[in-house]
Amino acid sequence: MTSGKVAIAKLVDEPALAPESLARLPERVVIANVSPELDGGRYPVKATAGDDLAVSCDLLTDGHDRVRAVVRHRIDGGAWSEAPLELVGNDRWSASIRLLKTGRFQFTIEAWRDPFVTWSEDARARAAANQDMTVELQVARLLAERAADDAKTEKDRSGFLGVIAAFDAAAGEGGEVASRLALMQSDATHRLFALAGPRPHAVTYQRVLDVRIERRAAAFSAWYELTPRSQSGDAARHGTFADVIGRLPYVRDMGFDVLYLTPIHPIGTTNRKGRNNSLRAEPGEPGSPYAIGSAEGGHDAIHPDLGSMEDFRTLVAAAHAHGLEIALDFAIQCSLDHPWIKEHPDWFDWRPDGSIRYAENPPKRYEDIVNVHFYGDAFPGLWIALRDVVLFWVAQGVKIFRVDNPHTKPFPFWEWLIREVQDADPDVIFLSEAFTRPKIMLHLAKIGFTQSYSYFTWRNTKQELTDYLTELMHGPGRHCMRPNFFVNTPDINPYYLQTGGRPAHRVRLVLAATLGGNYGVNSGFELCEATALPGKEEYADSEKYEIKAWDWDRADHIRDDIRFINGLRRTSLALQQFDNAVFYNAWNDNILYYGKATADKGEFLLFAVNLDPHHAQEADFEVPLWELGLPDHASIEVEDVASGNRFTWTGKVQHMRLDPYERPYVIWRLLAARRAA
Amino acid sequence: MTSGKVAIAKLVDEPALAPESLARLPERVVIANVSPELDGGRYPVKATAGDDLAVSCDLLTDGHDRVRAVVRHRIDGGAWSEAPLELVGNDRWSASIRLLKTGRFQFTIEAWRDPFVTWSEDARARAAANQDMTVELQVARLLAERAADDAKTEKDRSGFLGVIAAFDAAAGEGGEVASRLALMQSDATHRLFALAGPRPHAVTYQRVLDVRIERRAAAFSAWYELTPRSQSGDAARHGTFADVIGRLPYVRDMGFDVLYLTPIHPIGTTNRKGRNNSLRAEPGEPGSPYAIGSAEGGHDAIHPDLGSMEDFRTLVAAAHAHGLEIALDFAIQCSLDHPWIKEHPDWFDWRPDGSIRYAENPPKRYEDIVNVHFYGDAFPGLWIALRDVVLFWVAQGVKIFRVDNPHTKPFPFWEWLIREVQDADPDVIFLSEAFTRPKIMLHLAKIGFTQSYSYFTWRNTKQELTDYLTELMHGPGRHCMRPNFFVNTPDINPYYLQTGGRPAHRVRLVLAATLGGNYGVNSGFELCEATALPGKEEYADSEKYEIKAWDWDRADHIRDDIRFINGLRRTSLALQQFDNAVFYNAWNDNILYYGKATADKGEFLLFAVNLDPHHAQEADFEVPLWELGLPDHASIEVEDVASGNRFTWTGKVQHMRLDPYERPYVIWRLLAARRAA
Repeated sequence: MTSGKVAIAKLVDEPALAPESLARLPERVVIANVSPELDGGRYPVKATAGDDLAVSCDLLTDGHDRVRAVVRHRIDGGAWSEAPLELVGNDRWSASIRLLKTGRFQFTIEAWRDPFVTWSEDARARAAANQDMTVELQVARLLAERAADDAKTEKDRSGFLGVIAAFDAAAGEGGEVASRLALMQSDATHRLFALAGPRPHAVTYQRVLDVRIERRAAAFSAWYELTPRSQSGDAARHGTFADVIGRLPYVRDMGFDVLYLTPIHPIGTTNRKGRNNSLRAEPGEPGSPYAIGSAEGGHDAIHPDLGSMEDFRTLVAAAHAHGLEIALDFAIQCSLDHPWIKEHPDWFDWRPDGSIRYAENPPKRYEDIVNVHFYGDAFPGLWIALRDVVLFWVAQGVKIFRVDNPHTKPFPFWEWLIREVQDADPDVIFLSEAFTRPKIMLHLAKIGFTQSYSYFTWRNTKQELTDYLTELMHGPGRHCMRPNFFVNTPDINPYYLQTGGRPAHRVRLVLAATLGGNYGVNSGFELCEATALPGKEEYADSEKYEIKAWDWDRADHIRDDIRFINGLRRTSLALQQFDNAVFYNAWNDNILYYGKATADKGEFLLFAVNLDPHHAQEADFEVPLWELGLPDHASIEVEDVASGNRFTWTGKVQHMRLDPYERPYVIWRLLAARRAA
Repeated sequence: MTSGKVAIAKLVDEPALAPESLARLPERVVIANVSPELDGGRYPVKATAGDDLAVSCDLLTDGHDRVRAVVRHRIDGGAWSEAPLELVGNDRWSASIRLLKTGRFQFTIEAWRDPFVTWSEDARARAAANQDMTVELQVARLLAERAADDAKTEKDRSGFLGVIAAFDAAAGEGGEVASRLALMQSDATHRLFALAGPRPHAVTYQRVLDVRIERRAAAFSAWYELTPRSQSGDAARHGTFADVIGRLPYVRDMGFDVLYLTPIHPIGTTNRKGRNNSLRAEPGEPGSPYAIGSAEGGHDAIHPDLGSMEDFRTLVAAAHAHGLEIALDFAIQCSLDHPWIKEHPDWFDWRPDGSIRYAENPPKRYEDIVNVHFYGDAFPGLWIALRDVVLFWVAQGVKIFRVDNPHTKPFPFWEWLIREVQDADPDVIFLSEAFTRPKIMLHLAKIGFTQSYSYFTWRNTKQELTDYLTELMHGPGRHCMRPNFFVNTPDINPYYLQTGGRPAHRVRLVLAATLGGNYGVNSGFELCEATALPGKEEYADSEKYEIKAWDWDRADHIRDDIRFINGLRRTSLALQQFDNAVFYNAWNDNILYYGKATADKGEFLLFAVNLDPHHAQEADFEVPLWELGLPDHASIEVEDVASGNRFTWTGKVQHMRLDPYERPYVIWRLLAARRAA
């Protein structure tokens, strides 16, 4: 009645030509809810070299035909590879792709209706119901014919012809139907069709999605911040880069990875700020390092009292030799003495009376600095100059920049600058210092900032910490925003630290270092220095406005805790992930209790922190035996990581007591589990 | 130092020309998370004429400049209008747009940095801090100059020139600064800038989003389904359209809006199904009306025993006269005797042996029907023929189609067909009968189906109903999927109804009619007919395979409940919305307790349903006094809607008892609330 050719065409459902209103039909196979995808692919998602990228999507088609799909991916514009997606359930499919190196990774998804798999699964059901398979086997033979016709290589073609020959050879023999069915259902035939079969109704996802793969330090780093001029050990003598070199063993001994310096540039004299942010400096006062620029130079110059460019390069090399990376501060504002004001008046915000507008947040004014202007005549000269400032420091060996107040500069500027710099050197990291509204903070991450200061600094209670970590790990920023948990900064002396003494500092250290992939402390934190301007969240006699000298060995420092925690971070794979924290039950609102484990549970750490820096707290708590597939009455061997002591817990509910004056936290490692009798 | 012109350019931040890598900069103002938007604008969202469309989005820009935005919208390709967005909080903005008529509505968003509002709000802060305003007022004057230069009409221009003249006239007088400030801060000046001021950095959202506005019945309708041949009152006589006309007063008396007929076409004889779905019909058995097509015609023909096309048009008109709309069944499968098989063999799925494949779900087969084939040589002829079948019935006055198993036909076909038909007549409604996987069900709504059968039919417990309604009201389908809560169908006799008797039928009626905007019953439900095939969720002696005669007045019918509930639906604005149900606390898992209120709480109904059809259940429950701003000890007057009795509740916690053999539900109306002493 119909020719074999027509039947083949129907089996693979080829669309014919169509009249006007049917000319541009949508796809028969639907690829939807692709993850990871940020704002419809407008922004790249972030990933880290060495990690696996989990790609998933919904695949839908009509009827009962089976679909198949692959992730198509490539790096830095190279050749495309394919990785098959597997069905998870409820029409959701997923694949995992190992990311081997830094760069711009791209992926999309191709999906199609698979007539051979559909035939094969249906044939299994028909055969099981003892239906006559003669005609169904003819259908399978037609599929093999079609695959041979469409084969892209001679090898594929001969593969399918081989199947057909074997099929025909079975004809006339006794077990003809059974042997043909076995042939068509064999693993070898399935493999052949999977690799070389036709892909009818193939659709490619409408977007190619970008992934920026960065190096490990983008996601996992411990920062120590210091102000170079305060490193001489003498408040009367301006510190130098050589002094900073002298401090490297101290910083390294605590186990930090990044040494972040506040601005190192010449400082303006006009309206220079004095001690404790007073409006005018007394003669000899050094001013704020954030009032950048003087007759001695601007953003690409070094404050003469710190040393020369050669001295700076020596510091970078010395830090490297100590296993530390130098991070610089990129603060775009200018003092009124910055060379650009004369060289490029068009880059600044002049008022109709011929004065430059101070940086301000009306009615508040910052009289020692002015802002540049990014549009009008400042575009594009200023943009290029600022990019070149960053590239200048990259050329001096600096690969990490902490960016001051990026939310007060245009988003397009950052998106452009970060891309330009990372295209030149994919190892460059930008940390966004934007303590601003939540959606703005997130947007800066979307447009390219590698890391972000966060609200961690003000999240103190059990509920606050649980909610915020849950949002960061699983909320809308999960694919792009990597928080850096700073416990303090030169500007922020949190009330919790002001009032909680040494126990509070130990608490915040443990929280930041174990919950944050990236975390940081400002120098002095390890000394539990928290003297505040009365009633303010600021440090008294702030380093920002004067040269300080510290007794680094003063009593009650917490360097032992820092060394312990940073050491654990280096060896623990569970701590080197960010989104794997799970909060468990401890029946006391003062005790935050959580676990971090590797995916295979091969490493499983538990953390309990007494958030009350003043009183001992006790709690019953649940050992997450269920995570290991153990019953509630199981026994499990545990190590107290700080002491190395080992013991056994039996049963799900255990008890703890944490005295802030002894140790406000405990870290347990779950060891080989054994089932209770 | 700088000219006035330069200063103006800076105030409005105009981008200059840029070199290569800066040539296509992204926008400075970001419009994100636009709602309603479905899959990045790929599919239209749905709305109903007469409703308000709530549009919202995030608006972000750098620094502290204020943003402003409008929704730009139009209908059916007409002129664009603008509606301002207002700040809700946390960088979220919203607008509400009244939808006046059916059609294709489109909207997008335009946003910009508003230098005048920024100046004005800053000026207020500066003035409050007693800062010198002289130069700031010059800035304002420059903004007015710029606005005059850029004005689009002469009227706007003279408006701004008037402001400048008034500004200058204030010069030299005593209160010069104060009067200029008052002028620039006046409502009139703000209005002028809002309407006619420049829009620097204006960006338009990257997509124009589609909204399909449908008529009221798309979102709110009560369906009664019947099989025309069973309306003669005599199982030995095939019913006619005239018999159906005789039943209209009965249907109308219960308050239904839509009378839905199972297929009315000629029925095939080859492999005709017999009573209770037996494989072969006995002579004289009528067959399933879903086995469409015989020598007497196909999808555009009428079964000769029902009457003529003229009789059908008479039925449509009679239904209309009774306030009812006729809905037809659109079931694409064909009997083996359908004329298309001979006329268009290319539209069918032939097997290599020359037979047509039965409709099947291997190993299950439906021997009395075959499926058409949508691609290959069937495209586009079949598509056009099927569209024309729908348009043919539209021409006979039918505007509602219940579509049988749409998930087994290609998505692109439906997307095309529904658009073609609705472009011809925007009043046509398509109900998707796809009891399939959840994402497929949702996808059919995305591609255009007006209403969807849902899982309501199998959601019986308090938790199931609460979860499912929450998903439907607030989940991913909220902007496109309108469920139609069918309590039963010819194919589905739910176990709950089989085992729960009359109380169960009353329970499901009240749930469907008060929680579903659209709901439906199959004829016989009102008689509490639930005799099942043993162990199956099917009706014994199903109307699908035989002609039935019913005693419509048999004891224990629930027509009084149906009349009451449908009457309440017609008068209650709160019931005419779908997504306004709120579940409240009643401390008994057998009692579902919820409220529906208008946005202004002018109408506030409470519903309590005893889900246990066998036993009386009691519960304490919370009167939602907080929703009315009342304290927990307040008194409130209440009406029992069924009886009309009025009484007063004092205090938040009250008690109820629901006896399934008296009345398994209660509906209360909250009347004028008075505060307790």
